[in-house]
Order: sequence, then C-alpha cells, then structure tokens
Amino acid sequence: MPEHPRLSTFIEAAAASVFSRLRNRAEASGYELAALHLGDTYKDAPEGCRMQDLLSEEIEGLHRYSPVEGQPALLSALAERATLRHGRQTTSGDVLVTGGATGGLGATFGAIVDPGDEVIVLTPYWPLITGILRGLHARAVLVPLLLASDEGHADAALVSRVEAACTDRTVALYLNTPNNPTGRVLDPGLVLRLTEFARRRGLWVVADECYEDYVYAGQHAPARHFAPERTFSVHSFSKAFGMAGNRCGYVVSPPGLTEHLRKVSLHTFYATPTAAQFAALRALDGPGDAFVAATAPVYAEVGRACARLLGIPPPESGTFLFFDLSAHLGQRPLIHLLEHLADHGLLLAPGPSFGPYPSHARLCFTALPPERTLAAVGRLTDLLVGG
Amino acid sequence: MPEHPRLSTFIEAAAASVFSRLRNRAEASGYELAALHLGDTYKDAPEGCRMQDLLSEEIEGLHRYSPVEGQPALLSALAERATLRHGRQTTSGDVLVTGGATGGLGATFGAIVDPGDEVIVLTPYWPLITGILRGLHARAVLVPLLLASDEGHADAALVSRVEAACTDRTVALYLNTPNNPTGRVLDPGLVLRLTEFARRRGLWVVADECYEDYVYAGQHAPARHFAPERTFSVHSFSKAFGMAGNRCGYVVSPPGLTEHLRKVSLHTFYATPTAAQFAALRALDGPGDAFVAATAPVYAEVGRACARLLGIPPPESGTFLFFDLSAHLGQRPLIHLLEHLADHGLLLAPGPSFGPYPSHARLCFTALPPERTLAAVGRLTDLLVGG
Repeated sequence: MPEHPRLSTFIEAAAASVFSRLRNRAEASGYELAALHLGDTYKDAPEGCRMQDLLSEEIEGLHRYSPVEGQPALLSALAERATLRHGRQTTSGDVLVTGGATGGLGATFGAIVDPGDEVIVLTPYWPLITGILRGLHARAVLVPLLLASDEGHADAALVSRVEAACTDRTVALYLNTPNNPTGRVLDPGLVLRLTEFARRRGLWVVADECYEDYVYAGQHAPARHFAPERTFSVHSFSKAFGMAGNRCGYVVSPPGLTEHLRKVSLHTFYATPTAAQFAALRALDGPGDAFVAATAPVYAEVGRACARLLGIPPPESGTFLFFDLSAHLGQRPLIHLLEHLADHGLLLAPGPSFGPYPSHARLCFTALPPERTLAAVGRLTDLLVGG
Repeated sequence: MPEHPRLSTFIEAAAASVFSRLRNRAEASGYELAALHLGDTYKDAPEGCRMQDLLSEEIEGLHRYSPVEGQPALLSALAERATLRHGRQTTSGDVLVTGGATGGLGATFGAIVDPGDEVIVLTPYWPLITGILRGLHARAVLVPLLLASDEGHADAALVSRVEAACTDRTVALYLNTPNNPTGRVLDPGLVLRLTEFARRRGLWVVADECYEDYVYAGQHAPARHFAPERTFSVHSFSKAFGMAGNRCGYVVSPPGLTEHLRKVSLHTFYATPTAAQFAALRALDGPGDAFVAATAPVYAEVGRACARLLGIPPPESGTFLFFDLSAHLGQRPLIHLLEHLADHGLLLAPGPSFGPYPSHARLCFTALPPERTLAAVGRLTDLLVGG
C-alpha cells in the first residue's frame, strides 16, 4: 500500500462496517439470502409515482437542478401536511426538502451543533445518528429509553435520566418516535414532558418521525405540536411510500430557521433529486395515503407473526423487531452467532450498532414479502434452538 | 420571533445568499427572465437515459436503497472509464458513487480534514468549496491562479505561491481543472508540477474535474494520472450528460481508501439515488458520449460568441465566462450593478462568491438555448454601455 497523508479523526473513530462482511458470508453460503438486517420494503412505490411515470415532456426541468430548498409545489404540499399533522400553522418557508431523512438530520445538526457540543440520544438509537454527530465533532450522550428497574413509573424515570444527562454543553434532545429499532411509540404524555424539559433547559428538539405512518398500537405524538418554537421535525418518504432509493425527505423548522438548514444541505448534496421530488408530490396527491392504508395492516400482521415465532412482544410500530439473544449465546460473543446465521443465509443487524446492546439483534420484517419473511424467521428460530 | 437556542458557528459564518434576493428582483421585473447566474444546461438528458426510460418491471429495486458505495454495474463501468481516462488501472473498489460531485467532495474532505486543518484552494474557486471546508471547521487558504504580474512565467509563479501558502497544518491541495468559473484548463505540465509539489510535502490532491468533457482549447490533464497514490478524482454526470437534477457523481480514490469516504457519505445522504445511478449507467453505454459529441461544439460556439459580445477572451472549457465589470461600475459597488441588471431580468453571479473578486461576475452560457443566451448577452452589453 502506498504511503499517503493521514486521515481525519472521524474516519479513525468510525468502525469498519460489520454488515458487508456478514453479507459476503451469507451470499457465499449457498442458502437463499434473507437480508433482514437493513430497513427496506419488498413493495414497489405506488403506481403513478414511479420513475417511468415522470415524463420529460410534462415536467419542465425534470433532469435539471431543483431549487436548493425544494420544488415550490412540494414545499406547499408539505406545509399543508405539517399543518394538519402537527396541529401547527406551517408555511412553505418552514419546510426544507432534503436527501432523505439522513440528509435532513445532517442539515439540522449541522445548523445547531459545534465541536464539543452534546446531544442527548435515547438508546437504542437509529445507527447513523452517532456518526452524524461525530462527523460534526459533537458528542452523543446516551440515555437508556427503558430500564428493567423502571417498571411502573417508566416515564418519570426516563425524564429523570434525561435531566441527569444534561450538562452546560448540551444543545439538543434527539427524539426518535416511532422508534427504530424497538418499534416503541412514545406516548403523548411522555413527549410532552420531554419537550417541556427541553424548553426549561433551552434545548433544541430534533424529532425523527420517519415511521409515523406505520403505528400499530398507541398514538404517535409529533414533538412539534408541543414545542413548535424549538422543534425540527424530520420526515421521510422512504418508509412511508416505498421510495427509499429516491432519497427524499423533509424537515419542518421553527419560523425563520429553514434558511440556516438550507446553507448546510446546499454544501452537502446541493439539492434533493428533482425526480424524487416530483414522485413524492404525486404520492402526496392520493396514492401515498392509499399505499399506507393498504400496507400498514400487512406490516402489522407480519410483525406480530414474527414476534410470536420469536416469543417476544409484538411491534408497536415500524418495520423492525429488536430482541435479546443472550439465551442463545452461551459463551460465544454475538458476532459468532450472527456469522453462524449468515452461513445459513440469514442476516440480522448486530445490537451494538444501536447502543450498548452486546447480545441484541435487529430484524426487519418488511424487507421480504410476508411469506418469505415468515419462512426466514422460522429458519432463524430453528437455528437458535439448534444453537 | 420566539426565543430559541443558539445556532452553530458554521451558520453564523455563512453569508445569507444574495442569489435568491437577485432572483426575486428579476422575477418581479416584468422582463423575460435570463437566469445566467447558475450553472445548468438547456438540454434534456439523452434519450434512453431519462426517468421515463427506467422501468420498475425491468430494473429490480429501482425505488429501493442502493448499496452505499453504488450499484455494482455502475462501479464497474466507472472503473473502466477511470482506467482509460486517467491511464491508471482502476478497480470497482476504488470508486464511490456520490450525490453529485458536491457529495463526492464532501465525502473526500470529510475523510481527510480535521478542525483547524488547511486546504490550499486556487482562486477563483467553485463557490461551495469554502463552505464545505468551513462545515468541517477546516480553513481554505486562497492562492490566486493567475496574477497580472505573472506574465511569461505564470506556471512557475503559481507553484511558488502554492509553496509559500503551505504550512504545518496544510493537508491537501484542491485543484479544479477545467476551472469553474474561469473556464481555464491547467496544462499537463502545470498539473504535473503541482502534484509533484503535493508529493514532496505529503499532501493529498483533491481534483475536481466535473467539466472534463467540455474542453475547447488546450488539453485536460487528470491529476490522478500523475499522483494516483494521493489523488481523489471527483467527477459528475451533472454537466457531462445534462443530469444535474439527478444528483449523481463519483470519486476515484487511492487504493484502499474508498471505504473511508463511504463512511462519510453513508452519514450524509445514505446512498446515491438508485434511479440516478441507472440513468448514468445507461448514458455510459453510448448515449452519453454521443450527447457530449453533439453538445460540446454548440457550447464552444455560443461561449465564443458571448465572449466576443463582451469583448473578453473565449472560454477554454466549461459553461461559464468570468469577467471584470470595474469599467462599468463607476462609484457603485458591484451589487448595485447586479441589481440594475436583475431589474431588467438578467441574473449574473457576483464575483465575491468565487474569491476576492469585488468587481467580477460569472455568466453561464448554457443555461438557456443559444439564441436566447445571445439575446440576453446582447441586452447585457447594452445595459453595461448604457450604465
């Protein structure tokens, strides 16, 4: 290998991905691949909202740059949606269209954190959030969402833990509900208490609500409803409408702040892909809600069936199950078990990607069609029992 | 406006965009809008490579996530292209597909700079590069590409200036050739000298070569040819094939380094849009080169005609003219003249976006069809003469 200058400290700190190594093993295994480690859907985007439905002749500038903040018609449709969903008057100027929710979270944190700043992150967390903060030289302060000792007064205990984690360097609270990976839906009373705490301590709230359309139990409470003056509400079409590959999401900001997030996203990917924006706009005009209405009950049913097979509680929302494998580990480290599963074509995401969970794994129950998912989870339980 | 916590220092340092203010004036002017301030093309993407040509039924996973590093078939086609163009053996593993060249430059600098590090940037520069570095808390050290005093020994003088700008904190040299905004093409001897200097001082070379397909005079020299062990070569389909709205570019890295850039881009926009990657792949299979062959002579001719109207040298490459307006300013600051032009529907990009150029402006001669561009530049010269 040739000599070359040093790399950034971000790169030195970022762990090499275990995912691709596991994938290579699974692909070489000879078994049918069941890639349940990534969040995705087996369903195609709704008809009328696919790439082939976007005609150059009809959409001027389809392959040209979009305005950095987003296509005007999409901004307007999203403002209307946010007004309804958050119960807060929203204008086009409050909305920034972004390269997925990933781009939206990057733009938000880029606008509010400085090196050395701290952000409170509830665990288990969405795996990329700590890397996004590390890239900004900020620090994720981890607070467990739920402890075994919480029973009976979980909400009060959580708020106390968040308060105890807050320091002079804390600038924001990152709230991901409905939650990836646990599927937990924070109830409105808890979201209210957490946003009140943020207000009392002068913190921003960054609310990652990508799974809001897939809630099977309880009630989703948008943080922006309770604290519109300090909440950045981050959303995505990836999960909602089966458009993860399009890379289109959005952020609703407190009044006057979109222009600041726009400066960050401008320097990251310039503007959100134009075709993705028109596809999202079409989905918002009816087909998207129809897709969710048809899909959510199917997701819920397959999630419940997988949970039954695994002997764990059913998911409250989303597309994932997060469960403890310690009973099946014996003396082995988790990675050995995950390699063993990969050697039988089964891929799960390792618990440590989501926080301090050395014996957990995450399974996506929507990446494959229901019957294939259930067959794969059946194989998984056989392998776990067989050791 | 409600009280809220502070913003990041990046945001405090980033200037509010003068572009949107000028655009609003131009749109309100009642004149036909000539938006010559942004780099874009009036041509649609080549037939066969448009969104409507990408069929769900034919392309599995068209709306699903792509692998973070890019679609395997596209990586392979790009490796072949880089092998030929750079004269250096290239494998798929050396290539990262990115959200445009903007995403590629972000991934590259994210992997190599730390807060306080310095990067040498030749002026005039592509406007977003200083913001990308500022977002990483690194510093752009500006070195003029050409000074009036250089005449006759310009290359030696430039290398001396670069040497003089180098400090203990310098980690990289950013080379943008063919250059945006000047259209200048650095000749192979100069690129060789600059890469040799980088090697001597142990610097990375980040070579932004987005305009490589549109060279009208001189010879484009890819920096990676001279210093493959330290050069990140950044490319884009935006300009080459009229696909700016798709957001697809790529970076070719020294051996073993792609995985590091991949960690940064993963945290920025997850993966490049899937449809954009398939559109690029189709373009690389013939239609792209045909598009360039048909388009480059048209661009060259309209660039020359605009230069003649403005009384400045013809462009050597690309889609821009960068010229000094001081003879037309009198006592006015540049912005007053640009506002005067906007009030007649004409938009130019202000010189200060490109470095210390208080009386320059940039004009894109490919944003509108040739006849409309020439009409707009005719109006521009009338207004300049009329004051």
